[in-house]
Amino acid sequence: MFKILHTNGRARRGEFSTVHGTIQTPVFMNVGTLAAIKGAVSTMDLKEIGCQVELSNTYHLHLRPGDAVIKELGGLRKFMNWDRPILTDSGGFQVFSLAGLRKIKEEGVSFQSHIDGHRIFMGPEESMRIQSNLASTIAMAFDECVENPAPYDYVKASCGRTYRWLERCKAEMARLNSLSDTINKNQLLFGINQGGTYDDLRIEHMKQIAKLDLPGYAIGGLAVGESHEEMYHILDMVVPHAPEDKPRYLMGVGTPANIIESVARGVDFFDCVMASRNARHGFIFTRHGTMNMMNEKYSKDTLPLDPDCQCPTCRNYTRAYIRHLFKAGEMLAMRLCVLHNLYFYNELMSRIRGAIEEDRFDKFREDNVEKLSKRL
Amino acid sequence: MFKILHTNGRARRGEFSTVHGTIQTPVFMNVGTLAAIKGAVSTMDLKEIGCQVELSNTYHLHLRPGDAVIKELGGLRKFMNWDRPILTDSGGFQVFSLAGLRKIKEEGVSFQSHIDGHRIFMGPEESMRIQSNLASTIAMAFDECVENPAPYDYVKASCGRTYRWLERCKAEMARLNSLSDTINKNQLLFGINQGGTYDDLRIEHMKQIAKLDLPGYAIGGLAVGESHEEMYHILDMVVPHAPEDKPRYLMGVGTPANIIESVARGVDFFDCVMASRNARHGFIFTRHGTMNMMNEKYSKDTLPLDPDCQCPTCRNYTRAYIRHLFKAGEMLAMRLCVLHNLYFYNELMSRIRGAIEEDRFDKFREDNVEKLSKRL
Repeated sequence: MFKILHTNGRARRGEFSTVHGTIQTPVFMNVGTLAAIKGAVSTMDLKEIGCQVELSNTYHLHLRPGDAVIKELGGLRKFMNWDRPILTDSGGFQVFSLAGLRKIKEEGVSFQSHIDGHRIFMGPEESMRIQSNLASTIAMAFDECVENPAPYDYVKASCGRTYRWLERCKAEMARLNSLSDTINKNQLLFGINQGGTYDDLRIEHMKQIAKLDLPGYAIGGLAVGESHEEMYHILDMVVPHAPEDKPRYLMGVGTPANIIESVARGVDFFDCVMASRNARHGFIFTRHGTMNMMNEKYSKDTLPLDPDCQCPTCRNYTRAYIRHLFKAGEMLAMRLCVLHNLYFYNELMSRIRGAIEEDRFDKFREDNVEKLSKRL
Repeated sequence: MFKILHTNGRARRGEFSTVHGTIQTPVFMNVGTLAAIKGAVSTMDLKEIGCQVELSNTYHLHLRPGDAVIKELGGLRKFMNWDRPILTDSGGFQVFSLAGLRKIKEEGVSFQSHIDGHRIFMGPEESMRIQSNLASTIAMAFDECVENPAPYDYVKASCGRTYRWLERCKAEMARLNSLSDTINKNQLLFGINQGGTYDDLRIEHMKQIAKLDLPGYAIGGLAVGESHEEMYHILDMVVPHAPEDKPRYLMGVGTPANIIESVARGVDFFDCVMASRNARHGFIFTRHGTMNMMNEKYSKDTLPLDPDCQCPTCRNYTRAYIRHLFKAGEMLAMRLCVLHNLYFYNELMSRIRGAIEEDRFDKFREDNVEKLSKRL
């Protein structure tokens, strides 16, 4: 299912085959939390900007419009008119970051909806059932995401529980995939490594979950308070213990530099809201560094956002026009910038894949890590 | 410049040639006040939904980003990347409906910006200079738009002033078109008929302005307080006095039924924010009547907005999905609905043109006026 086509150092150029299409890795998944990319980007737009995998959020869709409704309407891919792969998260992260009044037990978590405060219970089985209703290509395991730094003993106990939850996720997913009215009977479950910033807990947990022989493994609980250096250190420690022949997904990360550094450490899948969220606020990524489109200096600038970019925005509009749209409060500003930033990320991954294939990833990393972070 | 290809009763099927392209009439112009269609619709989208003429607002663009900036950047068409015709209004309507603390004199109007309250003066010459800077295809005369009903004596005096302003507009436009650094030296000036709801003032004013031999004539000051019946009555009175061989533009009107009824009375050009504004609130026009997409009954409806529509929205998304997007507060909801409603209006005009060409406009009118207004 996962085929490594080429390696360059620890960086891997792979192909992940699913019933909804083949994913070229390393890949950046484009986030559409509520079954839509924020910024009025349609699924037609998504295809045009080279998105391979869309990512939606289980917790949000469970609340609105409800996973039962989405199942009735044929699953999330049909609902949002996206015929390529979708990854759904488990809801775990949102339960721990968005919801109120949490109570964690062995069985699962009870919490309050962030919309109307009503009491909800979600455990491994509930998360799998919701994701099965959504019928995504890849479902994520239900885990506890602990903020960094956290006390050693708490993280250790949490890792144990997250492991037991993963066993239950695996069993429930197998059961759901065997039911006759399940939309995607080939739904894939990715496990999630936790362990905070503790090397021994991270490694121990990864060794444990690796034995469950899942189709993919994520590294969770990073980019939640620790420094970039700590994050890279954890990757250096834990990735060697992840199965070689399974894709590795670093959840919720990150800047272009973070992505390049993580690919260099053997990561294959990425997602981050930063690309689209920054765009909606006028913060633009380019091959030459980052730009703030609110800046007065762009008010008469007739260049595209990035003269070297082939995205629909850069092929058609100027910096001066886009700055005007932001200043005038026109929604189109957000859409044009989201299209650009997502294209930039998708294109960055394509350039990374090319560099690995041609054994020049080290050079690519050297040339780009600092440059892409530069403020223009 | 204006060629009537066919008539059917008083309805006309025409072709209006400009340096920026030929316009098939009757036509509905798509409103992009601040050099952008609200709802994150791009100019690429506009082409896809069959827009022939984009309409922008002089007053708004004068304030933001400023017409001098737009001139420096090559004019509005280049600024917003729209290579088809653009009509700009004169700012008159906005000065009288949006701005504060107005003082009207023979020379022009002084008023306060609705953005920051700074004092601005605009008269016929100022309006022409701004529109010349914007370099639109068609510029509108600077007039006073009086709300209906208004006292007879006030409207009579206002008509006199609007006529004198029109003479000054014509002279200033001729002067501007002859300057070497003018971007569009073929900018066309349309006169505007006023006269409130008074037949004699309307007719007298139209006769006066007709003598100025302008490339087109608008009927202004309608849909500003009077009933539909009064509006149709004014059209019945005044249109016969407009030059036969020039296009007639009914400003700011209206519903699909209003448009059909006005075409039946000899009108060729239309514009209205209703199509896109209603869309942003979930109010949809279809060939079968109107819909409110907030309605719970659409929550599991897998039909497109209008099964008979070929717009990008109807070809790709369901009512259930669009309702979800509205409920979830996703901008994409607005964009998909604006695309649909504008396509509907543009398509309606195309159907009207076909009906006139084939001498079946009466039947078309009979079949559609009530149907299109029906609430589904």
